[in-house]
Amino acid sequence: MEKIKKAKIKIEKDLQDLEKSLNKSLKSKINLATEISSYTISSGGKRIRPLLSIFIARCLNYSGKELIKLCTAIELLHTATLIHDDVVDESDTRRGKPSVNKKWDIMHSVLVGDFVYSKAFQNMSSLKNPEIIKVLANSTNMISEGEVMQLSLKASFLSEKDYFQIISNKTAELFKASAVSAALLSNASAEELKFVKHLAFSLGIIFQINDDILDYFGDSQRTGKQIGQDLSEGKITLPLIKTYNLSSTKEKKIIKNSLGNSTKKNITLIKNLIQSSGALKEVLNIRNKYYKTCIRNTKKLPSSNFRKLLENTINELVQIDF
Amino acid sequence: MEKIKKAKIKIEKDLQDLEKSLNKSLKSKINLATEISSYTISSGGKRIRPLLSIFIARCLNYSGKELIKLCTAIELLHTATLIHDDVVDESDTRRGKPSVNKKWDIMHSVLVGDFVYSKAFQNMSSLKNPEIIKVLANSTNMISEGEVMQLSLKASFLSEKDYFQIISNKTAELFKASAVSAALLSNASAEELKFVKHLAFSLGIIFQINDDILDYFGDSQRTGKQIGQDLSEGKITLPLIKTYNLSSTKEKKIIKNSLGNSTKKNITLIKNLIQSSGALKEVLNIRNKYYKTCIRNTKKLPSSNFRKLLENTINELVQIDF
Repeated sequence: MEKIKKAKIKIEKDLQDLEKSLNKSLKSKINLATEISSYTISSGGKRIRPLLSIFIARCLNYSGKELIKLCTAIELLHTATLIHDDVVDESDTRRGKPSVNKKWDIMHSVLVGDFVYSKAFQNMSSLKNPEIIKVLANSTNMISEGEVMQLSLKASFLSEKDYFQIISNKTAELFKASAVSAALLSNASAEELKFVKHLAFSLGIIFQINDDILDYFGDSQRTGKQIGQDLSEGKITLPLIKTYNLSSTKEKKIIKNSLGNSTKKNITLIKNLIQSSGALKEVLNIRNKYYKTCIRNTKKLPSSNFRKLLENTINELVQIDF
Repeated sequence: MEKIKKAKIKIEKDLQDLEKSLNKSLKSKINLATEISSYTISSGGKRIRPLLSIFIARCLNYSGKELIKLCTAIELLHTATLIHDDVVDESDTRRGKPSVNKKWDIMHSVLVGDFVYSKAFQNMSSLKNPEIIKVLANSTNMISEGEVMQLSLKASFLSEKDYFQIISNKTAELFKASAVSAALLSNASAEELKFVKHLAFSLGIIFQINDDILDYFGDSQRTGKQIGQDLSEGKITLPLIKTYNLSSTKEKKIIKNSLGNSTKKNITLIKNLIQSSGALKEVLNIRNKYYKTCIRNTKKLPSSNFRKLLENTINELVQIDF
């Protein structure tokens, strides 16, 4: 019991170091760049990607000084994509606060997003590890391909296959890169790299599916998002895809009409459909499949208190039930 | 004479290889990403930054296989900034063709710009040279700081000092990085790195000042830009700053009123003012100062036909007279 407390304190210390490093990274002689980027970075993100890097590195006994730099690069990369994402989704809020495009404008979003990207790349390059830089550069490209793919399919009702392709690119790939780069930093073996990859990719999928369920059934106080925001923005996610496939022609029409055009009444209607159609159950089953892969691979990490904490974090994610 | 022809053919071969590499780099399974990014990259850019890398590498006897990768990364980086720039400047045309934000929309510009950035970073990372990656990452950051600085000063009449800070960041830094990274690739000495840096930075400034003069006095058929486009977009450049400083109160008012609000008559009026006030002469004098630095440092490169060709290119740039 005492030992797991010690491990927890170590992880918390890493996360504190990350916050300091993030703030330091965004310092610039151009005050506006620091102001807007700090506004975004300090708006209460969960730091789940760098946390994953920290867990993997600690599980693999990493003891060097590069971990926080890596975590900083990853969180900045993620933040840059969020800033640009909000332009594309025309989102007015992010984590309960006005988005950059709402508080400033699109021009500021584009340029400050680029500024944050450049800071991510500076942190990456300071690692001086070509293999890790390659993993992160490839991941950046996968995210961006996912974004363009999503945009190109905006006019159509997304298929389940396309949904998984998009969330793989936009979310799971960066989870994977966060874990794999931390494993590379820790001189992991080929075997270790393999299961770390699987655990992280499936964790990314779980995380995204959860996010998509929470959009309908979450506590908006906790998520900082309005219930039904995806529906209002015309964004089609797994709960809606599953519901659509299980619906009658009449219900299908209701779903399509609610997209980008959702009143409170509409949202309640769709939420009821998601549950009554059996779609929610199917979504939870899929999440459970990824959970099993995730936990099976996590258990291949050397047994330690860090691994125990990682397992707890994963379990917390899937304990959100509806 | 024969030998300089041979050098020229070698440079042309490098440029052809660059075109192939650029096209290959933008291939993606997401067709839309390839379509839009290829549209931009094939719209007739002068490839001046990678050309500078090629000249420096050839002057320093580089014989390896990484040069084209480096050039690809640099041209993609530049292209990504152009795509995002056009969003911020609300430009409808780029090199005589509709800009991405005009032909598609802002969302496509943001995401395809990010896609091109990511391709630049993939090319950089494939160089596996941490020092070069660092130079390019720092340059990316400088560009982005220049962009944010420009945005933050949009409401005010730009000072000469701020103008030079912005063009240093937005243009000259990438010229410098193009040359320095090529020199690093060629295992240049500290002394060589120093003068390569000076020649490239001053060339960047010359290039930008020229561009800003051409905006008023160029041949729109050749530049692909409408005469007075900067004035129409409310963009304040050196010719206008110099004119403003040399003008009477009445003329100052005319200049301010013409910003972002330029009729053909207005543009002619401002062009006359730029010449009659003596501003154009002052601008050309400044350009000449940078030209002298540029040529002095170019002459420190080992004497060769490649250096001769580089000198010719630099001279062509300043032979544009008004």
